[in-house]
Amino acid sequence: MTPDIGAPGQNAMETETDIRSTASRQIEAPDSQVARFGPDDPLRLDCGVDFAPLTVAYQTYGTLNEDRSNVILVAHALTGDQHVANEHPVTGKPGWWDLMVGPGKPIDTNRYFVICTNVLGGCLGTSGPASIDPATGEPYGLNFPVVTIPDMVRAQAKLLDHLGIETLFCAIGGSMGGMQVLQWAASYPERVFSAIPIATAARHTSQNIAFHEVGRQAVMADPDWRGGRYLLEGANPTKGLAVARMAAHITYLSDEALHRKFGRNLQDRKEITFGFDADFQIESYLRYQGMTFVDRFDANAYLYVTRAMDYFDLAADFDGQLANAFLGTSTRFCIVSFTSDWLFPTAGNRQVVHALNAAGARVSFVEIDTDRGHDAFLLDEPELFAAVRGFLDSAAQARGLPALVPVR
Amino acid sequence: MTPDIGAPGQNAMETETDIRSTASRQIEAPDSQVARFGPDDPLRLDCGVDFAPLTVAYQTYGTLNEDRSNVILVAHALTGDQHVANEHPVTGKPGWWDLMVGPGKPIDTNRYFVICTNVLGGCLGTSGPASIDPATGEPYGLNFPVVTIPDMVRAQAKLLDHLGIETLFCAIGGSMGGMQVLQWAASYPERVFSAIPIATAARHTSQNIAFHEVGRQAVMADPDWRGGRYLLEGANPTKGLAVARMAAHITYLSDEALHRKFGRNLQDRKEITFGFDADFQIESYLRYQGMTFVDRFDANAYLYVTRAMDYFDLAADFDGQLANAFLGTSTRFCIVSFTSDWLFPTAGNRQVVHALNAAGARVSFVEIDTDRGHDAFLLDEPELFAAVRGFLDSAAQARGLPALVPVR
Repeated sequence: MTPDIGAPGQNAMETETDIRSTASRQIEAPDSQVARFGPDDPLRLDCGVDFAPLTVAYQTYGTLNEDRSNVILVAHALTGDQHVANEHPVTGKPGWWDLMVGPGKPIDTNRYFVICTNVLGGCLGTSGPASIDPATGEPYGLNFPVVTIPDMVRAQAKLLDHLGIETLFCAIGGSMGGMQVLQWAASYPERVFSAIPIATAARHTSQNIAFHEVGRQAVMADPDWRGGRYLLEGANPTKGLAVARMAAHITYLSDEALHRKFGRNLQDRKEITFGFDADFQIESYLRYQGMTFVDRFDANAYLYVTRAMDYFDLAADFDGQLANAFLGTSTRFCIVSFTSDWLFPTAGNRQVVHALNAAGARVSFVEIDTDRGHDAFLLDEPELFAAVRGFLDSAAQARGLPALVPVR
Repeated sequence: MTPDIGAPGQNAMETETDIRSTASRQIEAPDSQVARFGPDDPLRLDCGVDFAPLTVAYQTYGTLNEDRSNVILVAHALTGDQHVANEHPVTGKPGWWDLMVGPGKPIDTNRYFVICTNVLGGCLGTSGPASIDPATGEPYGLNFPVVTIPDMVRAQAKLLDHLGIETLFCAIGGSMGGMQVLQWAASYPERVFSAIPIATAARHTSQNIAFHEVGRQAVMADPDWRGGRYLLEGANPTKGLAVARMAAHITYLSDEALHRKFGRNLQDRKEITFGFDADFQIESYLRYQGMTFVDRFDANAYLYVTRAMDYFDLAADFDGQLANAFLGTSTRFCIVSFTSDWLFPTAGNRQVVHALNAAGARVSFVEIDTDRGHDAFLLDEPELFAAVRGFLDSAAQARGLPALVPVR
């Protein structure tokens, strides 16, 4: 589906208010397909709440084949969304996985039918803390139930049921997307033919939780957060959210990549200024990352989605034995990690491989040598593309998919 | 010198106001020795300002010998201070290097005369942004000149001149303290007999600057910062400073140590609460680190001291060749790094070793195997203690110091 509005982020004359209204419009009237589930069709959440009504916003690419066997579910990361391979309706930028998904790309939309949902708790159209609570007519804010990775996956499964899609040819995603892929394989093994969890882990570590807690405290320290009621009170904790984004952004990059890209280079000046302006390019870059993020993301959604990641501990639901999550599975796995990723290091990905081995699952494991850190899964990484393409080709053959589905 | 007040931090009944007044009293009337340099005796700073009047607050331990040859200068880190080995006048806790400095300890005060100054730009009695500007009668705030590591070292040299101490038997410090040690060796090679820079680097990396910038933005995003004029306006940006401290604190620890200490353990509860309270021990720990820090540190001082570290690039003053900083030196060096320190990794310490080798300096290098990250230099690390003790013994012999100076 092509977004039906312009590319606001690329218009330099546009005011901040314009961007915000475009961003907030995505919550109730997203530039996406949506599925709505009414009060009589609730989603049972891990916290015990039967959540309804539920809206799931999603994008699709490519064509569903007749026996519905060519579906690839892409799961997005913390601050990603369903706009995988189309111009983003708020920022006007290309989709976040435009390099990976499209005609002739590693996830070839000439062959596969790709679907991506905005996660439960997000802010691009799927129900989240900025959505209107029909019981009050006001945004949920902190009255939105705290959701988990399994809840996100349940919402996706509910959408697939609604669309009449029984099985996924493949589930793929990086970071929090990889957590969802692992959860899919554990919760619905019979529905997942193959799975590609990238740069992820079966549980959030203490350090991961620590960085998220800093981000949440930064948001909640902003007086404009108003105890989570900022939308009702016409405020927006943009300063706190920008600080949260800046801190998180450092963790997505590697020390080496920062050195290569920025080093100690000065920003538009020849000498240090003995002041607190952004003397260094890295300072200017981080400030930009913070400022632009707040235009497209809801602060409460940031709290909820980080919390879902913190709570993720797949083994905990299986007597503490990760291998038990995959016992008897027939899913084919391809695990991918990056050498310089210190947020989701190879060791954590390898633990998943070991568990899959212990469960007797089919698994291949690729560690890609790159200095680009965790962010590598979003970037132009030829080895990643080759691994995904090769694994999908082989899985497609095993699944009996024709070599190429003609474009309608 | 023993602080002449009680241990406020240990009294649970004490109010926040009491602690603040104790903390702010340290700025103008510190529980330390002080040297004051008047308007006619300015300190020339790198930014071009002739700064006066100047106060330097310092602590000493042990006894100066007759020929003043047994002086060890301890340089403190970003949030450290001069209270190396005495009860802290604000927190009531033991000195930050109580394990290292004292009678019979690796830096043996029965043998050596130890001196530590609060750094220029700090907030425990040496001139800093919270000091009163005599020109206005108000706290300097952002009118305080931006200082550098060389400026801090110049202030220390000025104090030593004042005390009639010509040479240092040793300069030692970790992290920012190590930067000062390197600067001492480069600026005053004839005054430094031996030097022990620990867990440091000859320049701040892009990633180091990035983390500091996040901290500064967190402080400046707090409306109670008031453009740096909070002291004048009766406010205090404690929330922003606490967030800054939380983010920084993660960088002082290692992923492994966090996993070992906290893992995913819950705080005083058996199950997650599906909320934003501190469910995990690591969250509770970080919040505590943030809250207690603001009781003892001035927010503007945090901006100034982080900035000094960011600006540090020792080679830049020597045609970009670090070895040139040490050409012809007769100082004996012992460089120490820790395997799990990702903030000041071994690689950065090794660059100093290589430069010293290239300059033909006497240098030994110890990489200590520990999972405790950057913080290891402050902790009970027997290998560190053994390395420091052994190096000092050998240097003392070379310097002709008697085996033990009797206690008076």
